[in-house]
Amino acid sequence: MATYPQHKISLPVIKRLPRYLRHVQLLQKACVETVSSSELAAMLGNTASQVRQDFNCFGGFGQQGVGYNVVLLCKALEQLLVGGSHLPAILIGTGRLGCTISGFLGSTGAGFHLTAAFDNAPAQIGTALGGLVVQDVATLAEYCGASPPEVAVLCIPEDSASGMAQVLLSLGIKGFWNFSQYDLAAASPGVVVENVHLGDSLQSLGYRVRNI
Amino acid sequence: MATYPQHKISLPVIKRLPRYLRHVQLLQKACVETVSSSELAAMLGNTASQVRQDFNCFGGFGQQGVGYNVVLLCKALEQLLVGGSHLPAILIGTGRLGCTISGFLGSTGAGFHLTAAFDNAPAQIGTALGGLVVQDVATLAEYCGASPPEVAVLCIPEDSASGMAQVLLSLGIKGFWNFSQYDLAAASPGVVVENVHLGDSLQSLGYRVRNI
Repeated sequence: MATYPQHKISLPVIKRLPRYLRHVQLLQKACVETVSSSELAAMLGNTASQVRQDFNCFGGFGQQGVGYNVVLLCKALEQLLVGGSHLPAILIGTGRLGCTISGFLGSTGAGFHLTAAFDNAPAQIGTALGGLVVQDVATLAEYCGASPPEVAVLCIPEDSASGMAQVLLSLGIKGFWNFSQYDLAAASPGVVVENVHLGDSLQSLGYRVRNI
Repeated sequence: MATYPQHKISLPVIKRLPRYLRHVQLLQKACVETVSSSELAAMLGNTASQVRQDFNCFGGFGQQGVGYNVVLLCKALEQLLVGGSHLPAILIGTGRLGCTISGFLGSTGAGFHLTAAFDNAPAQIGTALGGLVVQDVATLAEYCGASPPEVAVLCIPEDSASGMAQVLLSLGIKGFWNFSQYDLAAASPGVVVENVHLGDSLQSLGYRVRNI
């Protein structure tokens, strides 16, 4: 039996997977048993052909003509996206945004485990954040040597993000959830970065509403 | 003299504008006077041809062969993205995420003005949020009749977001900054929606780190 994925999946396909999962989870909640690629496409606003192509990257998830079994499809997507052991993650920057995001990271079933939080502000260091105590960012290398994290969540200003990202890369961090405005993906091609550029999103919204 | 934009600008172009602005602002801070499309492309990880095509949608911003004047380019992009009067916005959902986002909306120069915040939880109603007092969501229609907002920020759970979005559309809301997991853009095609699906972003990150 073939094992999937057998080749590198393209980023746009990966980015669509969570949306598929959300819609399939809704179908499962609604006790729908099967769903066709056309029905899924209509829910997501894309095409049946794209749904089938996307799913074929992972072996197809179902039989042609019969539609997808919702329970099995849901399980397969969950396995792809949040399956396996939780990824150890550290938070850099424990301001308002950092605290909110750490709560989010801890509360979802997204497959991560926040193991430590760091800041450089004396007022923050030593304070409680969830079940953690905020540590001095000066101790970062020591911490990463002892308990290697795989992911860093960057909730720091743009001007500190550039230097911090290089430090984290040198300490073996593989992926970044980047809330800073720093363009980490452009500066370090090949590094796994998921950007949440709130400012960009807000500016796009403003432009679009002003130019309806 | 031609006025731009003369035609509907495509969404991918609009989404790239804030990134251009961020990089051009950095050049301006660094006192760089001119920048070529190739240099901009290298900073952003795209192509010179795409930079020129994108800018041509707005009249070009500069002269061929000379490069772009950084100060003028910065001003032009700022005018496009945050120029004009501030857009009145309301916040729906004043939990942890809503509070953080409202702070963000108030602190950036993104061209919005938060005029009111609503919740349905008795514990939240009447509490202070920035300079506002959280109002009962039951009074939403009355508020929108008296002070029509243009944008709504949705920081509510997926299962309430669907109904709330329909209410807000009927009250004349033109654009949504959507932090809920609800797929508003798929459900209401044609409505201006900027999604910040934190869960999707986190799942993509997890998949990519697990499959490096």
